[in-house]
Amino acid sequence: MQIISSTNALRLALKTQANIGFVPTMGNLHAGHIHLVNLAKQQCNCVVVSIFVNPLQFGANEDLANYPRTLEADCEKLKAAGCDTVFTPTVAEMYPQMAQSATGIQLNQSMTIVPPDIANDLCGASRPGHFAGVATVVAKLFNMVQPQTAFFGKKDFQQLFVIRELVKQLNYPIQIVAGETVRETSGLALSSRNGYLSAAQKQQAAALNETLHEIALAIQAQNTNFESLENAAKTKLNRLGWQVDYVTVRNALNLQPATLADQHLVILAAAKIGNTRLIDNIELSL
Amino acid sequence: MQIISSTNALRLALKTQANIGFVPTMGNLHAGHIHLVNLAKQQCNCVVVSIFVNPLQFGANEDLANYPRTLEADCEKLKAAGCDTVFTPTVAEMYPQMAQSATGIQLNQSMTIVPPDIANDLCGASRPGHFAGVATVVAKLFNMVQPQTAFFGKKDFQQLFVIRELVKQLNYPIQIVAGETVRETSGLALSSRNGYLSAAQKQQAAALNETLHEIALAIQAQNTNFESLENAAKTKLNRLGWQVDYVTVRNALNLQPATLADQHLVILAAAKIGNTRLIDNIELSL
Repeated sequence: MQIISSTNALRLALKTQANIGFVPTMGNLHAGHIHLVNLAKQQCNCVVVSIFVNPLQFGANEDLANYPRTLEADCEKLKAAGCDTVFTPTVAEMYPQMAQSATGIQLNQSMTIVPPDIANDLCGASRPGHFAGVATVVAKLFNMVQPQTAFFGKKDFQQLFVIRELVKQLNYPIQIVAGETVRETSGLALSSRNGYLSAAQKQQAAALNETLHEIALAIQAQNTNFESLENAAKTKLNRLGWQVDYVTVRNALNLQPATLADQHLVILAAAKIGNTRLIDNIELSL
Repeated sequence: MQIISSTNALRLALKTQANIGFVPTMGNLHAGHIHLVNLAKQQCNCVVVSIFVNPLQFGANEDLANYPRTLEADCEKLKAAGCDTVFTPTVAEMYPQMAQSATGIQLNQSMTIVPPDIANDLCGASRPGHFAGVATVVAKLFNMVQPQTAFFGKKDFQQLFVIRELVKQLNYPIQIVAGETVRETSGLALSSRNGYLSAAQKQQAAALNETLHEIALAIQAQNTNFESLENAAKTKLNRLGWQVDYVTVRNALNLQPATLADQHLVILAAAKIGNTRLIDNIELSL
């Protein structure tokens, strides 16, 4: 397994590869990431995993500085999973015009990708600019790695939607494969941010996925008053000590609020325990 | 020479090509375009020319509907120049989600590329959204054609600058080659929009390039009061019947207003004769 941090060296290493599977990550890898690597191994001759904590997708008050960076352990896991190439660019490599100002790091990435309006809804509503940052870094990584297939987890359902739009609307010759969310036995979706939770909070956190399942069961039992289901779920989670950002039933194909005509739904939630913001979702076909 | 209008057929035709030279155009080809094709022939094994009048880069009051479309004559010229593949997508092929509204064509391209602030200066000041439309369509075409080299004319100097930034900041693995402006004997830069001019206007139009040369001569003669030179040029052109948009001396490397420290300058102008907006520029190394 090669570990490469410069774009030029990456291009050289991948020059003769005709069937590249690409898994972009922010590192601190867990079984959800490794599941994507396994999918890539099955489908592609050469698996490239990037590890890059992308400043462009973090808000001013978010956890960029504290985001867990565990490169050595990540590389061990990737080697064991059969990854061929790990790409670990520095911030200066990704954003060469970066400058340090008195108020913090300035990323001089003045050519950016602006995603559709849906990027300002759901997680985008409380994280302005987040999906523009994601779309921009993924476009850059796609141009660096030039994969035939790229793998994204369904836990970040809205991100997956934005990436699919990126590929479709900018005509990237890349197939997007979605990996199922990997969960703890309790139902808690694996996330690098779970590492911020105390043991007690981790137990508490299982309620997020439970609540989504309760909504799904209610819908399957013909309760299609989505707003009432959403409100009941929010009330319950707030009572359990969460600060709920959103719980919402959406059309899984376009992420618009669900209507009675929709056959493929997704129930999405974002909420905080203490300072830790967690997201989850489940799909539901009627 | 193949003429292809679908993206899928294009990808199939180019699949085994490893050294593609790409010349994106809006058609109505003149010797300036053919110069770019000749450069591509010299440097690449396979030359692809796209012909697409891109609605996304036209403003509401601009000449989208009247822009000259001369596909048959264009293809004859390209065949004679040794072009291998002409890509002629329809608007629906480039923007599949397009919808027709009561107020006109709606391009449902909701994932777009936003260029740097310089795109709102010079031609961008009077053509809001123009360079975002250019950057977005070129990014799409780059992803469709996947060339190793792409060729752009220096007549559209600001466009060339935006494309270079696109490639650099989004890490496209593409070399950009700039072709020199091709001119009439009078000095008038070749442009598809010259076809709008009457014989009398065409004679008059040579004054644009003459004026740029007068500024260059003055600067070479140590007159570095750029503002005064710009104002004199505007006054002269307005007196000759032009409606001047801008005449400006800039740093050729970053398009910022020129300073006395700059060694590589570009003098740019945009002005209208009648309803026809023409642009021109000349570079100047001190």
